[in-house]
Amino acid sequence: MKSLHQLARRQALTGLAMPRVLSSQNIAASRTWQRAFSASTATASQLPGLDASKLTITKTTTPKEPMDSKDLVFGKYFTDHMLSMEWTATDGWHAPRIVPYQNLSLDPATCVFHYAFECFEGMKAYKDSTGGVRLFRPNKNMERLNKSSARIALPTVNGDELTKVIGELVKLDSRFIPDARGYSLYLRPTMIGTQKTLGVGPPGSALLFVIASPVGPYYPTGFKAIDLEATDYAVRAWPGGVGDKKLGANYAPCILPQLEAASRGFQQNLWLFGEEEYVTEVGTMNLFIAMKNKETGQKELITAPLDGTILEGVTRDSVLTLARERLAPEGWNISERKIRMSDVAEASEEGRLLEVFGAGTAAIVSPVRNISYKGKMVACGLKKEEEAGEIALQMKNWIEGIQYGDEKNPWSVVI
Amino acid sequence: MKSLHQLARRQALTGLAMPRVLSSQNIAASRTWQRAFSASTATASQLPGLDASKLTITKTTTPKEPMDSKDLVFGKYFTDHMLSMEWTATDGWHAPRIVPYQNLSLDPATCVFHYAFECFEGMKAYKDSTGGVRLFRPNKNMERLNKSSARIALPTVNGDELTKVIGELVKLDSRFIPDARGYSLYLRPTMIGTQKTLGVGPPGSALLFVIASPVGPYYPTGFKAIDLEATDYAVRAWPGGVGDKKLGANYAPCILPQLEAASRGFQQNLWLFGEEEYVTEVGTMNLFIAMKNKETGQKELITAPLDGTILEGVTRDSVLTLARERLAPEGWNISERKIRMSDVAEASEEGRLLEVFGAGTAAIVSPVRNISYKGKMVACGLKKEEEAGEIALQMKNWIEGIQYGDEKNPWSVVI
Repeated sequence: MKSLHQLARRQALTGLAMPRVLSSQNIAASRTWQRAFSASTATASQLPGLDASKLTITKTTTPKEPMDSKDLVFGKYFTDHMLSMEWTATDGWHAPRIVPYQNLSLDPATCVFHYAFECFEGMKAYKDSTGGVRLFRPNKNMERLNKSSARIALPTVNGDELTKVIGELVKLDSRFIPDARGYSLYLRPTMIGTQKTLGVGPPGSALLFVIASPVGPYYPTGFKAIDLEATDYAVRAWPGGVGDKKLGANYAPCILPQLEAASRGFQQNLWLFGEEEYVTEVGTMNLFIAMKNKETGQKELITAPLDGTILEGVTRDSVLTLARERLAPEGWNISERKIRMSDVAEASEEGRLLEVFGAGTAAIVSPVRNISYKGKMVACGLKKEEEAGEIALQMKNWIEGIQYGDEKNPWSVVI
Repeated sequence: MKSLHQLARRQALTGLAMPRVLSSQNIAASRTWQRAFSASTATASQLPGLDASKLTITKTTTPKEPMDSKDLVFGKYFTDHMLSMEWTATDGWHAPRIVPYQNLSLDPATCVFHYAFECFEGMKAYKDSTGGVRLFRPNKNMERLNKSSARIALPTVNGDELTKVIGELVKLDSRFIPDARGYSLYLRPTMIGTQKTLGVGPPGSALLFVIASPVGPYYPTGFKAIDLEATDYAVRAWPGGVGDKKLGANYAPCILPQLEAASRGFQQNLWLFGEEEYVTEVGTMNLFIAMKNKETGQKELITAPLDGTILEGVTRDSVLTLARERLAPEGWNISERKIRMSDVAEASEEGRLLEVFGAGTAAIVSPVRNISYKGKMVACGLKKEEEAGEIALQMKNWIEGIQYGDEKNPWSVVI
């Protein structure tokens, strides 16, 4: 078993982030992992970490014209430059480089092609009314990137240093950020394993790159409520799995159920979990449900708890934080708890379902009109002429106000 | 929701293999998927399929010297050439090409880097005693490749045509196949999504490539029994998930538990499932357990059933088939059934556990000495001086005999 001896050796060499104490397959265990990851990451610090002061910039000699704003398509057009950072198990993080946007040249045996050593983040840069450029809670993305990379034996990175060099990329290419409200520069930090062997083990080298794509508003002409299909025949994530990490591995398997829903006219599918059919998340968003309590009549804003089966969305966290700060004083109960799809259907039938919306970086919030469940349509509280409920609308305004710097808030970081 | 309308359109365009009737999240459902995939794949046939007769060959101008056999490391050195086949949603499969082994040049937005659109196969070519070159059950690899690709919205391919062009690659590079027993040419067909956008949807283009790596015997000096650690804190696969497909997505998340086991001196980890702690599979192998029945004393060879949570191993199927043909007449009961780890431990304590071995393409069979389970070591029936049990040894000899053409068998295909 040569290859596994190699694993053990490389582990010692690199001080790869790893759990030390792992006992039971449950939420507690999953949290233990995360703590252990953070703790043991420190041991990797004997290798050089990412150093923003070492950044080199090679400018393109063939600058592009930014696309016309009205022609933007999500993630299809990119700016002139990209960030590129190499890591090796022997030398740690090499000096970060900004280079012209260019193809990656990789050996066909590179482990990213075979074993899905890949994780990513989605974040945006916004132009404010004074022409300044802002990031939204970049520390949350950095934290999550490290949780993701550590879970698949890729290196972790100093989030502050990475944010600095991302800032340099954004500043260099800021002419690509349209300055109208709703427009932004979508940033895609991506880490891939680059070892060139087919042995299944922790990659001895990795590449972290960041590309940037100007994007328009998700709903250019105002909200448009979507219909969801509840999926009970396939499972996205499970306890003890990796569904809470932003790994490539969590995405490709989700396409077929999405297509299946689309073939019946639904914009997204809603993942249920277990015999109880707990509501977990929607396609690429977290889900929020506003309803009146059956017994007390109190208004409750509910989203699934971070039990290891849902993505730890930055927008999800922002919605929860703002709701606790601004809705709770108005009598709302803000809950991270499991809720069965049958309870949502019951609330709808009894007129207690107020509104339902998805939350994610792309749309901020995405109102839901109906959910198809067991052959019936569960109406989600919108009137026929409405495209969004009150909470969704408020959340979009609050969050956008912070993102574009209209409201002073530490979440918005000027670069 | 522009991107989802695109999904629906593209679906209609490409006739992507997709389930039509999906009802309940269980084994039956998983089988329904597979049938539906196969059935609907036919609709894709309006686009050009892979055509082996269109193969073009560009030979290297800088041929390499094959490595010395004793220096071979699994999947580290490759032959002079590779197979490359492009697919697009509009034109189907393009003409296959054999080209010099070379890097892939891909846009950093390519979907394989972000959403794990990737699946692969592992198969081997063997030199027989007359110098002929043989593949082992290539049809099984082709079937599985199509199940894997269809599950992640990548195209399917005509397996017979693909086997033909793989044969041409193997013949062209046959001087790299060492002709000693135990040596072979490991073949790695790999399919990746190559669409250059960040929108999460079915790839509009894909690349299927095949690389070849000369490999030596897994146990150069005879069997060496391994120790396993039973993993109960992390879960590899789930009913309704994709654990039965050979997707990159199933591999990266398994490294950390493997490293964890390695850090305590175990060569692999054994994945348990559920509260019942059913034995599923080992690292990158299926698992077989030979034991005497508690009540009847009858000898039973047990492996986990194909319930969607374990990989459909070609070696697993070969072991089962040979066992039914050659061991059942000797009084063995051959079972594909769930078995709890606690039952294995009990059989060990009561002296009924005869032997345990992994089964996979790399080692054929891999005998197990001990399994660490709940802090105790479960002895797996080997005497101190033994490195393999009787069944493992027989299976290796039977299968190797067929692979190298000593025994005439339709499983071995001369190319």
